[in-house]
Amino acid sequence: MNIQEIQLTSRPTGIPSAENFALAQNTLPEIQDGEVLVKNLWMSVDPYMRGRMMDRASYIAPFQIGEALEGGAIGEVLESKNSEFPVGTKVNSMQGWRSHYISNGNGLTALPVTPLPDQSFLGIMGMPGMTAWTGLFRIAKLKPTDTVFISAASGAVGSVACQIAKMHGCTVVGSTSSDDKVALLKSLGVDVVINYKKESNLIEALAKAAPQGIDVYFENVGGEHLEAALANMNDYGRIAVCGMISQYNATEPQPGPTNLAMLIIKKLKVEGFIVFDHWAHYGEFAQQMGQWISEGKIKWEETVYEGLAEAPNAFIGLFEGKNKGKMLVKL
Amino acid sequence: MNIQEIQLTSRPTGIPSAENFALAQNTLPEIQDGEVLVKNLWMSVDPYMRGRMMDRASYIAPFQIGEALEGGAIGEVLESKNSEFPVGTKVNSMQGWRSHYISNGNGLTALPVTPLPDQSFLGIMGMPGMTAWTGLFRIAKLKPTDTVFISAASGAVGSVACQIAKMHGCTVVGSTSSDDKVALLKSLGVDVVINYKKESNLIEALAKAAPQGIDVYFENVGGEHLEAALANMNDYGRIAVCGMISQYNATEPQPGPTNLAMLIIKKLKVEGFIVFDHWAHYGEFAQQMGQWISEGKIKWEETVYEGLAEAPNAFIGLFEGKNKGKMLVKL
Repeated sequence: MNIQEIQLTSRPTGIPSAENFALAQNTLPEIQDGEVLVKNLWMSVDPYMRGRMMDRASYIAPFQIGEALEGGAIGEVLESKNSEFPVGTKVNSMQGWRSHYISNGNGLTALPVTPLPDQSFLGIMGMPGMTAWTGLFRIAKLKPTDTVFISAASGAVGSVACQIAKMHGCTVVGSTSSDDKVALLKSLGVDVVINYKKESNLIEALAKAAPQGIDVYFENVGGEHLEAALANMNDYGRIAVCGMISQYNATEPQPGPTNLAMLIIKKLKVEGFIVFDHWAHYGEFAQQMGQWISEGKIKWEETVYEGLAEAPNAFIGLFEGKNKGKMLVKL
Repeated sequence: MNIQEIQLTSRPTGIPSAENFALAQNTLPEIQDGEVLVKNLWMSVDPYMRGRMMDRASYIAPFQIGEALEGGAIGEVLESKNSEFPVGTKVNSMQGWRSHYISNGNGLTALPVTPLPDQSFLGIMGMPGMTAWTGLFRIAKLKPTDTVFISAASGAVGSVACQIAKMHGCTVVGSTSSDDKVALLKSLGVDVVINYKKESNLIEALAKAAPQGIDVYFENVGGEHLEAALANMNDYGRIAVCGMISQYNATEPQPGPTNLAMLIIKKLKVEGFIVFDHWAHYGEFAQQMGQWISEGKIKWEETVYEGLAEAPNAFIGLFEGKNKGKMLVKL
């Protein structure tokens, strides 16, 4: 059958542009025994994908020029010769950026039967939600008495991290990039929100937002945000390094913070993490998150682009601050 | 009685110079009940003291202008009205930079009776030795299979860290600043030694020295050394941040490494530490180090300046690479 897919046509320099991508036709053969044909319903775009667009060794292989991109997606089984995934099964995979795909079941997960919308398994119940939970509890060892600073606080990960930390009893300071994102975060209960685009001195802004100092920094941004956090950390503070989105599109090496000696002076712990390393704990996360959702204790936002052809724009929008909460493409 | 002391006369800008210090006269009263009069025999100069010369909040109070500096010292009790420290007792204190002092016993530790030279309790058996041991075992959780990179490897801390790591079974790469220090480190069993002053690209030099990658980085230097380590760390590597001597005399803020995203990509753990926080474990360290010394398994170097008046030059020499092993002043 004929399908559509988004291919990487060239490696971006700086912020990716539409010219780096192409909507292409492809064909799929008939399915064989043990295989399923899946039609994608939703796909995820995430900042980490920018790294895969570079040709370098990393924790995950680079995308190849002239081939379809990959990423989290929710689909529905259209044809099945695999008894584990009968027709109609909703499945989670890494086969996004295409209309349909064939799978032998490896890497497919059937969605559990819940009242939750399918696409929540790409967001609050999926990788971004699990990332927030992992960073706070498994990396930063969050305590109820902590003051927590979360950058990119209105994003898919940050907005969940903010709410988890509030439920845990913490004081939460978030940074974001626009007044309506500030309003969103305040509505989620964040104690103090910084619109960093309006601040000329982020170190001072953070000192004012958290005069008691920061115990845990959930790092999504890098650069000046990391410098401001280091300047305002309390002794024995913990920094969970989830992302550094300010660095991903840099065309020249970006100098790091000038105040790394704070690591010593304040005896800080810093740990980078990749959520996939922690996936054995997904059940624990999902049980907890499902309960919070069923109790109405947590909210989530989605920003949805319509149609596979819009996937590159959705992805590019991540670096222009166009998403509140999870950025999704509805196929 | 009349005594001599070294006072801080002005706060240094950049590398400290002789003009920042003055040899001054002072007087001590007669000792009271419970007090002892101590004559210093040896004093320590250490890079961390540079931080105390700045007027800023830190883990230890800044030195005051017009007052004597402080630091580790070994002395002998000359007069005593304290039965815990009879005349002739050798004592360890933080009352360096002066010829004599009076103490009520707080902060004094009698040296244990050992065949070791007194001044070893300012070096291998003291703060620098304990720092090496703490960084490797308590912070970096050293394993025998680790490849360890140690910067400032020929210094008081680094030269001990190199030998401990070798005894533990590790492969050790050290960096230092001159050919005779390279020779010293090779004589101590360090597997590969980099003279960083002869390398135009430290990232490549380290990659060549440790093609298998670095599991543990013992950070004493900062700047380009940290950048090179980050570029060459293996996944899940650990960085024990002990010092950043390249930053201490900076008159302008020094940009940090450009490759901090390696924290995420490689899932690294970084932890800054101050040895004083770990002093409850001194007994454990001293037992182990004493055994290594008695078995002839560990060596140490001393660089000795003679006379209290030479203490500023000894201190300044730390930043000019003038010491092999522990820098000491013999009073």
